[in-house]
This record gives sequence, structure tokens and C-alpha cells, in this order.
Amino acid sequence: MKDFSTVQSVASSSSSCRRRRGLRGKKHDSRAVASRTPAAAQPDVLQPPRLTVFYQVTFPVDTESGGVINISRRKLKMPLDEEKNGACDRSIYVNNPHLDSLTDDILYHFNLGTSTHNLAAMFGDVKFVCVGGSPWRMKSFTEYIAKELGLSDPNAEYPNICAGTDRYAMYKVGPVLSVSHGMGIPSISIMLHELIKLLYHARCTDVTVVRIGTSGGIGLKPGTVLITKQSVDSVFQPRLEQIILGKPVVRSTELDGELAEELLQCGKDLAEFDTVIGNTMCTLDFYEGQARLDGAFCSYSEEDKQRYLAEAYAAGVRNIEMESSVFAAMCKLSNLRAAVVCVTLLDRLKGDQLTSSHDVLNNYQQRPQALVGHYIKKKLKASKKS
Amino acid sequence: MKDFSTVQSVASSSSSCRRRRGLRGKKHDSRAVASRTPAAAQPDVLQPPRLTVFYQVTFPVDTESGGVINISRRKLKMPLDEEKNGACDRSIYVNNPHLDSLTDDILYHFNLGTSTHNLAAMFGDVKFVCVGGSPWRMKSFTEYIAKELGLSDPNAEYPNICAGTDRYAMYKVGPVLSVSHGMGIPSISIMLHELIKLLYHARCTDVTVVRIGTSGGIGLKPGTVLITKQSVDSVFQPRLEQIILGKPVVRSTELDGELAEELLQCGKDLAEFDTVIGNTMCTLDFYEGQARLDGAFCSYSEEDKQRYLAEAYAAGVRNIEMESSVFAAMCKLSNLRAAVVCVTLLDRLKGDQLTSSHDVLNNYQQRPQALVGHYIKKKLKASKKS
Repeated sequence: MKDFSTVQSVASSSSSCRRRRGLRGKKHDSRAVASRTPAAAQPDVLQPPRLTVFYQVTFPVDTESGGVINISRRKLKMPLDEEKNGACDRSIYVNNPHLDSLTDDILYHFNLGTSTHNLAAMFGDVKFVCVGGSPWRMKSFTEYIAKELGLSDPNAEYPNICAGTDRYAMYKVGPVLSVSHGMGIPSISIMLHELIKLLYHARCTDVTVVRIGTSGGIGLKPGTVLITKQSVDSVFQPRLEQIILGKPVVRSTELDGELAEELLQCGKDLAEFDTVIGNTMCTLDFYEGQARLDGAFCSYSEEDKQRYLAEAYAAGVRNIEMESSVFAAMCKLSNLRAAVVCVTLLDRLKGDQLTSSHDVLNNYQQRPQALVGHYIKKKLKASKKS
Repeated sequence: MKDFSTVQSVASSSSSCRRRRGLRGKKHDSRAVASRTPAAAQPDVLQPPRLTVFYQVTFPVDTESGGVINISRRKLKMPLDEEKNGACDRSIYVNNPHLDSLTDDILYHFNLGTSTHNLAAMFGDVKFVCVGGSPWRMKSFTEYIAKELGLSDPNAEYPNICAGTDRYAMYKVGPVLSVSHGMGIPSISIMLHELIKLLYHARCTDVTVVRIGTSGGIGLKPGTVLITKQSVDSVFQPRLEQIILGKPVVRSTELDGELAEELLQCGKDLAEFDTVIGNTMCTLDFYEGQARLDGAFCSYSEEDKQRYLAEAYAAGVRNIEMESSVFAAMCKLSNLRAAVVCVTLLDRLKGDQLTSSHDVLNNYQQRPQALVGHYIKKKLKASKKS
């Protein structure tokens, strides 16, 4: 039996329209709450609302595993959902009381910090964050979305906001932030810790985060765009086990079902390539971890591989990549509306190596950005009308 | 009880001088074995020895864990060590029979391949591979080592051999290859699979691989350079659990003790900074996984953190990073002599954030490269004399 505590029960209704309030540290400034603007309103970059939010929560734990602990010492209940003026708001959660004691919060891997940068002025208007493995692809996405949103200027350049480090690259145009995350769960996890703190310090609200990436498909035509229904582990369970203080902690990898459906509709609107919803398997390794036969080591047969992939297919898995589980878990804990949109570069039932031409692969890689670009454009258009 | 099978028992004597022979695929060309040159001889780039090696092995497994399987279907015994003409040779192992059926092996994340590149001509003379997280640092290392080895030319440029992809960066000068690996076990694992295949296809022998990186220290003065004795997991065991076909497989993370001692001596030779040998804890996460109090989430207290770090210290852990376990395990399986040399950027018993100035951190980061540069210079000098 799983004991998914407060966070999960609240976050499972993540598509509902709700408003949160809280306090950072010990004082609760009720005036700050009263002054908040609806999330759908235009961003107030110069004088962002002075609301800060803090909730400490109990993480979901797996009581079946025996060794799992509840590491929370103080348990504070998540406040009830609250609507005000019909507005829909989603603040960013950081679940960490220790941040209050920091005079400066250095986001080391971004080369940014609260005492060296005015994060609210730089990022307060962010409503969409797109993340992907490759720095080049994230720069390319920024150029693409600038054109799509009519924010493009022939002379415009999009400098890397994380200049001074080569751990990650970050670009921004209008309300869209684009950040690279490298490959694998640990790499995207570092980025997300710092991104969540960045959005929190910048007092962003109502933020949607989408991972746009590449993957290996299972039983899908190469080039198909897959929107993740559930991110599952290597035994096809929708969970992420993390080790904290040497003990396993299991977190839910549930994603926003409503957002996935909206993105699927965008695929239908575009009608340029196949778009489907399915489960995504997230692994810690590209070769043996994904049953590939072409790594430096392989001690199983083609039959073993096919049997494993068939089991995955039977569990609803339609593609495999390396970041979705921790992405889903961390976005869920932070109240970020999240989706994973990956193109399949090959059908793993038919092979392991990427033999398609550079042009074909390049075309495939542009599909998730086209779909997400269409979604952002649609949402901003609807927001202006309302 | 652990059942470390063939690989471990052979590799544990990795510092001994020995020679291997074998065959790739079904045919064993005895002429090829006879034509091999001693590893200490000068590299033969144009006409490298035509030896290819293949051994399938049984991986070390942990029989305590219950769920661990032996995934090997065919077991071939590692051939006995053999010395010839007093020469010492170490071929690269790829433990994968399926590679034989590939007409082209595409090293996708390097943007290299056996049909598009003459890997033997490009890399056949490599004797040292230095790997590190940051692409910039690996380029900087190449410029540094070129000067140290007297191979520097004022007009020399070191192009990125992996141009065409931004997953990894690779540079080469003389017998020294320098490759970035990003952050975390999955990221370095992909790189190592392709690096091992690259060295194998290039028919390299007697290769030493060193990871030069940064880390958080435990009870060490910031700036101390730590050479890893054992890479341990989050419960301080020298092992790596990987998931293959949905089942856990445990591999040894033993490193080359003799090489660690040689590197320690280099630190003494230089006498520019503190150099010590100790255990390194390798984690999947930078924040909660390393008991930091400054991530987006934290549900434990300062006391919990200190207690955990004290337990790590008692187990001989002196620094924490995110790549050493899979680096050690994969190098061991491939017969690569390997070491991990990381500078400690802070003492985690005293804090979590990197508050030192940019200049100080920059100076610290140059220390592993200075130490490894000295080692390479010393080895090449000794090789020329002999």
C-alpha cells in the first residue's frame, strides 16, 4: 500500500482553478495576499506582487518497501484551495524552510543569485518554460517561438542568460523561458531545483512547464510525437525512487491530464505529423538500461530484448527517454503544470542505432517545438481575448 | 554475500603487468596476436596492430539482494593472463557479441561512426583519456596539457572533434584525449559506452582514464584534491546498482589502487596544494541526495544532515560527487586503468552554498588538471627512457 500524503492529494487536482496563500518564514502579511493579481493578467515586472509562499509538506512514501522513511519532522497541512474574484492562480511551491535563513540564494549551476540579479525583474513575467536536453535546441526553440509570437526582430539576438557557466543554457523571449537540462535524471534534477527556486524568487504564478525532447519509440512510426500520459520506471510503475539521507523515498510521477489533452488537440490542429498520448519509460541508462544491443556491454539476447520491450508495450509504454520521471515528480511537488512531449527517432522493436539521415532526424526534432509553439500561441491568444 | 564472478577476480589484479588475447566474432586470427606490439612502444597510427578482442563475461552480482539476476546466457571464461617478451599490454574490452553484426557502429552522441571516420587513424595513439563534466574545462585541459608536453604551438587550435553535436565535447593533443561528460551517472554512462567502443574500434591499448572534477568535501579544507580510493553509494558501499531488463545488477566500483598512489605522489611532487586519498560518495542528486539544505525541497533538519555526513565521514567518505561509481564500474569492466581526481570546492560540514569568489573557485578547479598533467608528463618521460 502506498501512503501518498498531502501533496499528492492536492496536486492530483492540478488542473482545477485555485488560489493559494501562505507565508515565507514566520510572518504572514495579509496585505500581500490582498494585493495579488489574477494569474491571467498581464505580468507586472517592475512591481510584482509581494507575495511569497512557503509550505512544508510530507512527501509520498511507499510503505511497502520496508526501508522507506518519512523524513519530515514538522508536518504542516496544505491550506485549502481558495478562489477569489474568479481568478485562477498557481503559485510556485518551494518546500524548504531553510531557504528563509539564506541572505543570498546562489543558483550555482545557472550562475545567477538573489543578491546579484533582480530575478523578479528578469523573470517575473514568465508563464511558459520549455526545457530540453540540448543547449542548441533550446536556443533554436527561442528563435522559433519569437517568430511564432510575432516578437521576432531581424536584429534580435537572444543571449544565453547563464553566460559564465556551461552547465546549462537559458534563453527568454516574452513570457517564454527556454532552458537546457543535459541528459539523465541527475542532470535535469539539478536544473529543476534551481529553476523552481528561480521562479519562486521571481514570484511567478500560473507557470506551465513542458519538456520537449527525443526518445526511442516502441511500436510507433519514427517521427511520431508522443505526449506522456504517465512516466513509468523500468518495471512500468508511475513512480520515482530517490535516495535522501541514504533512505529511499518514492514520489509520484503523475502529469497534468488536461494539459496532455490540450497538447494532443494542438497536434490535431497542426495535422503535420502523428501525435499520440501514451506512457513513457524513464531509465537511468541509454544502452543496457533501455535493452539496447549496441552498447559497450551486453549480456542478453535479441529475444530477451524483444520480450522486455513487449512487456513495456503491454504496460502502455510507447517511448523511452531519460528525464521524464524526475521532471514529473518535481513539477508536481512545486505546483507546476507540466507535460512531456517527445518525438520518437526510431522504433526500438526494429533496431537500436539511429540510421536515419541528418536531415530526417533534424526534421523529427523540430516537431515537439512546433507542437508546443502552437500551444503557447493558442493560450496567449485566448488569454488576450478573455 | 557477494558473488563477484570472473571479471572481478581478474580485474582486481588490474595493476599487474599482463597480456590478453582473444577473438572478435567466431574467428581467431593467431597471426594478429603474433603481430601485436608492446603497449609501451610508440603508437603505430598508420598501421595499428590488427588485433581485435572480445570476451563475454558474467557481471558481478549481489546475491544478498534477492531480486538480482544473472542475465548472461553464454558464459565464456576470461582467458588466463599471459606475459610475452616482458611487455605489458592492456587491450580494451567490449563485452558485447552483437557488435560483430553491425556493419557500421554509429557513436551517436559523439557524432562519429566506424563507416564515416577512420577511428584507428584518429585515436589509435591515445594512451590517456581525461574526462570531466564541463566542455570548457576539457578544452582548457587540452590547452594546458599541450603546453606541459611541449606540444603547444602559438597558432594551434584544438577543434572539438564532436562538432555537429552539443551532447559532449572532445579534444585531442598527442596521446591525450579529453572528453566532457555532463553531470550525473546517466550522462557519463552514455559517454563511456561510446568512448569504450571508440577506443576498441581504434585498437588502443594500455589506456589510462582519469576523471578530473569538482566535489563537495567532508571535513577537508576547501581546495583539497581528493584521489578516490573507493567510490561508494549513498549507504557507503563500494557498488553500483544498475537496472537491466527491469532487473537490478550490482557492479563493483573498485578503482586502481596503484594508480591512486602514483597520483598521490604527483601531489607530493607538486607540493602546491593538499592532496589526499579517501572514499568518494556518488549520488544521483545534488541537493536532497547530498543532504543539502538549499534545494527547492528539503524535509530534514540541519541535525539530520550533520548526522548523515558524520556517518559518511566514519565510513571513510571525504567527498561527494555524481559520476565516480559508474565511471569506476565501466572502466573496470573494460580493462581500463582508472582514477578519479576531484577538488573539493567547499566543506559540506560548514555549509551548502558555494560562496567563494569566482577567482578562488577557478583556482581550485585547475588543481586536478595540474596534478593529472604532472602525472602524464612523468609517465611519458619514463616511457621514453625505457
